[in-house]
Amino acid sequence: MTQRVVIIGAVALGPKAACRLKRLQPEAEVVMIDQDELISYGGCGIPYYISGDVSDATELMSTSFHMLRDERFFNKAKDIKVLTRTRALAIDRTKKEVTVHDLKTDEKKVIPYDKLVLATGSRPRRIPVPGTELDGVFTISTVKDAIVIKERITRGEVGSAVIIGAGAIGLEMAEAFTDLWGIETKVIEVMDQILPGIMDKNLALMAQRHMEEKGVTFYLSENVKRIEGDGRVERVVTDRRTLESDMVIMATGVQPNTDLARQAGLVISQSGAIVVNNRLQTSDPDIYAGGDCVENLHLVTGKYVYFPSGSIANRHGRIIGTNLAGGAATFDGIVASFVIKLFDLSLASAGLSLQGAQESGFDAIGALVVQADRAHFYPGQDLMYLELVVEKSTRRVLGIQGVGSAGDGLVRRVDAVAAVLKFRPTTTDISNMEIAYSPPFAAAMDILNAVGNVADNIIEGRCRTIETDQFETLFEDRTKGGVIFLDVRSPKNAAPYVQRYPEYWINIPQEQLRDRLKEVPSDKRLVLICNSGVRSYEAQVTLDNSGIKDTYNLQGGVAAIKKVGIDLTSGS
Amino acid sequence: MTQRVVIIGAVALGPKAACRLKRLQPEAEVVMIDQDELISYGGCGIPYYISGDVSDATELMSTSFHMLRDERFFNKAKDIKVLTRTRALAIDRTKKEVTVHDLKTDEKKVIPYDKLVLATGSRPRRIPVPGTELDGVFTISTVKDAIVIKERITRGEVGSAVIIGAGAIGLEMAEAFTDLWGIETKVIEVMDQILPGIMDKNLALMAQRHMEEKGVTFYLSENVKRIEGDGRVERVVTDRRTLESDMVIMATGVQPNTDLARQAGLVISQSGAIVVNNRLQTSDPDIYAGGDCVENLHLVTGKYVYFPSGSIANRHGRIIGTNLAGGAATFDGIVASFVIKLFDLSLASAGLSLQGAQESGFDAIGALVVQADRAHFYPGQDLMYLELVVEKSTRRVLGIQGVGSAGDGLVRRVDAVAAVLKFRPTTTDISNMEIAYSPPFAAAMDILNAVGNVADNIIEGRCRTIETDQFETLFEDRTKGGVIFLDVRSPKNAAPYVQRYPEYWINIPQEQLRDRLKEVPSDKRLVLICNSGVRSYEAQVTLDNSGIKDTYNLQGGVAAIKKVGIDLTSGS
Repeated sequence: MTQRVVIIGAVALGPKAACRLKRLQPEAEVVMIDQDELISYGGCGIPYYISGDVSDATELMSTSFHMLRDERFFNKAKDIKVLTRTRALAIDRTKKEVTVHDLKTDEKKVIPYDKLVLATGSRPRRIPVPGTELDGVFTISTVKDAIVIKERITRGEVGSAVIIGAGAIGLEMAEAFTDLWGIETKVIEVMDQILPGIMDKNLALMAQRHMEEKGVTFYLSENVKRIEGDGRVERVVTDRRTLESDMVIMATGVQPNTDLARQAGLVISQSGAIVVNNRLQTSDPDIYAGGDCVENLHLVTGKYVYFPSGSIANRHGRIIGTNLAGGAATFDGIVASFVIKLFDLSLASAGLSLQGAQESGFDAIGALVVQADRAHFYPGQDLMYLELVVEKSTRRVLGIQGVGSAGDGLVRRVDAVAAVLKFRPTTTDISNMEIAYSPPFAAAMDILNAVGNVADNIIEGRCRTIETDQFETLFEDRTKGGVIFLDVRSPKNAAPYVQRYPEYWINIPQEQLRDRLKEVPSDKRLVLICNSGVRSYEAQVTLDNSGIKDTYNLQGGVAAIKKVGIDLTSGS
Repeated sequence: MTQRVVIIGAVALGPKAACRLKRLQPEAEVVMIDQDELISYGGCGIPYYISGDVSDATELMSTSFHMLRDERFFNKAKDIKVLTRTRALAIDRTKKEVTVHDLKTDEKKVIPYDKLVLATGSRPRRIPVPGTELDGVFTISTVKDAIVIKERITRGEVGSAVIIGAGAIGLEMAEAFTDLWGIETKVIEVMDQILPGIMDKNLALMAQRHMEEKGVTFYLSENVKRIEGDGRVERVVTDRRTLESDMVIMATGVQPNTDLARQAGLVISQSGAIVVNNRLQTSDPDIYAGGDCVENLHLVTGKYVYFPSGSIANRHGRIIGTNLAGGAATFDGIVASFVIKLFDLSLASAGLSLQGAQESGFDAIGALVVQADRAHFYPGQDLMYLELVVEKSTRRVLGIQGVGSAGDGLVRRVDAVAAVLKFRPTTTDISNMEIAYSPPFAAAMDILNAVGNVADNIIEGRCRTIETDQFETLFEDRTKGGVIFLDVRSPKNAAPYVQRYPEYWINIPQEQLRDRLKEVPSDKRLVLICNSGVRSYEAQVTLDNSGIKDTYNLQGGVAAIKKVGIDLTSGS
């Protein structure tokens, strides 16, 4: 007896599960339904379609061999029946039926199933303010939205845009608007940093400064009060200002689509996502769910989290396909790997941020290293900013994050750590991790190994650090006394600072420090500064050894403070 | 009582161990000796100095903040005494003394030690043929050699060069000579592939073809008989030909420098390297050794291997420094990660190649996937060729290797697998591995996940494959009968092949296959072909289901056969 499988949702997980099932069990009857007309598209590609990097929306819906993944394709190439513009209204788990509404004919019908897959994904979260219904207010969720947005841009109707939300999609859209179209783009974020909940503030600030240099304006810690306009959007009003705008993108996160699951009485988590076991079965073993409508076990915290991702959806899809065919594939969980390109930078992370670790109850430290992303003598090398988050008492590695150039160099290091996070690595595993070496690709002591080493030095108390925000506070309070900034770089590098702040900024190059200890003020707290944090650590060891111990090493050195936009040598 | 540590060798490991020790134990007295004048250089950077990518040799000997790492630097910045041009002659383990020869003064003296570090590295292996003493015959081992080579090139004395050995250094030198200098470069290799022992033949062939396109000529499976010339090299004679040449580079591998260790009676392995425990102590617990003069435990085979690497030397150095200071750091072993840039390509590997796995007694398969290195719609995406080596019975992953564009995209996937190899991953770990996703960086179902999936399909018998060399043999033997090539691409793609080989090459697009099964010859062996191996696998499943089972899927499809230089549609 052939089984009949009904799949609700045909974007990422649905098609994957369907195709895998059909390969394993060609006789299975598979019906995939979707309320939309366009299916099986790469939704994550929308910002690149809008930016112009992807010229035609059909590319997002095509296979890599340029075949449109439409109803006909699935039917002919895969023997899968697809019903588009068909909305699932209700699931009857006793009768094992789905009631659907055919939006083309306005008919309702009932589709029986042996096994059901919920691939209902997520929908944009809309903030509850007046004016979101105005023409020109968009969310980024379907290719259909994207096509309308791009048409308006192409017609020259969008001189300025406001993006609400500085998460991944909001920032990608800000780049898309600014880079090639030259739209005056403003981003409003309710939190006090971009990428909240994903990156720590110091690293997020580096990306923000970069985007500001590219022309994007940010308004952080601001609440949108209302969107105004006469039929069409004209302005966005926050608790602090009014921004004129021809278009508004609401990028305030997504939430799982679980209406059907709730109606059917399936177990829903506190976060509002469908609860599944590691075979991706819901509380009804004949109903599977995966992708953006479920939550996943976080392998670092051991808690369930909602972390929507097209990549996870695809991997879920294959596992569901295997299990529909009688297999026993499992999905153990995630470490929340993340990467984003923003103009000429990339940001990536996996596991927990320092803030995330602390919120999860870990007594954690962050070790930041600034180092070339390949041999320092190799042309085209660029500085990378990499931070390892480590539990103090156990040296367990909880997460990694960084900022680098737009290529794959940063995400390479993040992926390698992500790969081992489930094995509960310690700093030793990072210090000895084998990052394939040759000068065009890595340093002989790679930045990833270095960040493991530095974390050890911090935990052992040899390296006592401050971060850029703490530096900034100390520097602003310098006239209160008690703190001296000891610059251990070459006189040439230090001169502009020494000249400008002669009372607070002194220069003794690291290689002269042992001979010039007498010049070091022993009654003040010292902030040690070099270009990257390496020589200032060396100086800290030397000072420790001579009994001067109230010293703090600025993590990432001058490279880090410049990257977050602190400039002490120009302006007023 | 302060301890006195003597370190023999001051290139990579020596300085690292010395600096780490001094940071942990500033009072320790450290003497580092080296027979050369130039120390602490990035030897792996030599090909890039010769190519011109690195303009000045001092860059290889400088810190990332442009400070020359010479005797004075180590003395001033690190409180480490360095004796250059000082050769260690003998170790007296009873008296704990090293006898050295000061090459500057021609004096001999004795240096006492509490702890000794052997950082003697490796030396080039010279092949035993006449003529290697001629002027113009070089090895690539020290910066001094490199400076002489570059001077001769710059003076225009090198119109043609012969490189003996197609290992990593030989190939990097071939690129250096050809790319900017336009030197006519020939590479002679005794084995039948480039990068023998590192990459499998199919992937090595892809790189060879690329280098040939860039102007490098290869002579494989040839033995050098002698080098000839009147004082200066003029030609190289192999068992098959004579090659005129202004310069010869012997890049026939390296061997550990163990003369001192042997003389001192330390235990040496069968491979000729110093035997150390996981704290990097030799058979004398007061003598440490690491880097290119020791062998390492291979974490996949569980056997010791000689795998020289500047990166391992640096990590060894830190561990030795820690242990000299009374710590208990350990080095567990290696997975032999490798990466090389060759013109516009990168090649990378970790763990075992298929051939290596088979030689180590594993019943292994190789799963090759050809796929875009990022979202297929993202501009600048390029095809990547990734092969996973898996033990059949256990699905244990033994290794990974690949060919990609010159950036970090390939090594990113290889590093992630390398990171987990010591945890004995299975194909499931690869199928579910979290490669950070966004369209500029990965596909939603990343090539790494795909290669895990394909390996599973192969082991389960659903995907029965042939590689490019087997395809070539079958194609050459086509007139013997029994084999038909079934091209499941679009008619447009298949037409040139069908027109040229109408008796052997038939075309049924995959999406039409179920409707056109009657056209499929059921009495022949079928080789299934598409662009990448994905649709041909789909076709194989369809044919299996209809009872046609004598089918083979060409791994990597037309993309792979083109990449190894098989062109069926042009020429005679």
